[in-house]
Amino acid sequence: MRVLGVDPGLTRCGVGVVEGVAGRPLTMRGVGVVRTPADADISHRLVAIEAGIEEWLDAHSPELVAVERVFSQHNVRTVMGTAQASAVAMLCAARRGIPVALHTPSEVKAAVTGSGRADKAQVGAMVTRLLRLDAPPKPADAADALALAICHIWRAPAQNRLHQAVAQHARNAQRAAKGRTS
Amino acid sequence: MRVLGVDPGLTRCGVGVVEGVAGRPLTMRGVGVVRTPADADISHRLVAIEAGIEEWLDAHSPELVAVERVFSQHNVRTVMGTAQASAVAMLCAARRGIPVALHTPSEVKAAVTGSGRADKAQVGAMVTRLLRLDAPPKPADAADALALAICHIWRAPAQNRLHQAVAQHARNAQRAAKGRTS
Repeated sequence: MRVLGVDPGLTRCGVGVVEGVAGRPLTMRGVGVVRTPADADISHRLVAIEAGIEEWLDAHSPELVAVERVFSQHNVRTVMGTAQASAVAMLCAARRGIPVALHTPSEVKAAVTGSGRADKAQVGAMVTRLLRLDAPPKPADAADALALAICHIWRAPAQNRLHQAVAQHARNAQRAAKGRTS
Repeated sequence: MRVLGVDPGLTRCGVGVVEGVAGRPLTMRGVGVVRTPADADISHRLVAIEAGIEEWLDAHSPELVAVERVFSQHNVRTVMGTAQASAVAMLCAARRGIPVALHTPSEVKAAVTGSGRADKAQVGAMVTRLLRLDAPPKPADAADALALAICHIWRAPAQNRLHQAVAQHARNAQRAAKGRTS
């Protein structure tokens, strides 16, 4: 599967496309940053982010967009901008009918480094190794976007198995109920 | 001037259109709420809000969109949704070239009731009186959207005078500098 990871932000919105399946070597299809000027009006910054995300969707036709789930334990001002940038990314994907998945920063770190408390350098090093790159992608937002995409590809089978188990359980319960009434 | 006020929210996004100028009776052109189901996926809720805001922009062609400035002193979960809904409203306006103005809740309350700490009932009562309505608009989000539009129309002249004064000051300083160098 081909996944566009988005590390949302108003000043730097990291984007990275990874293709592959769990258990096989992954391939990077592209990485970059959508930037907007810090002194611009917030509404114009959101328009610029929309245009940037649209370009990445056009260029790579991802099957899924993985966005970082925003929490508010961080700096209050930053979080509002992050929430707004993530809204634009989710909107762009969903109105094209592309599914959106959210992963928390610690899920992403745990997926690529084995520890939910890994630092930026560790995440960058593992992304470089897993995608067989020559150097860690810069800035960190770009590496984080790739890590999000990798996290989704690796977690997807577990999530799918969970969904299948829940669906199977529901079918069994239905059959059991039918057996009792017929 | 015709202003669309938006009280952003994922579950209920208040919208209200007010026309008029400061110092003259104002007219309500429309009021309503864009709703999205609480159990829907966040990305689909944002798409529904976009569609709702687009309808209001099409129907009323406002000259400006006034959106509540989101703060994070409130409930953390609610604030993220509010920030995301406000991002969609700002994006819809700005990509049509419609200017966006942000006003804080206390600016809005102070504008329509005289007190920045007025409660919902007071805001509703004043909106009803100022727009000569038969009853307060329901729900409160709809009344708040109208209050935002009224606030902008009334504050706009002061803001314009401020901008003009700043511009005049810059011109004077430029002339003075020229006088010194020529």
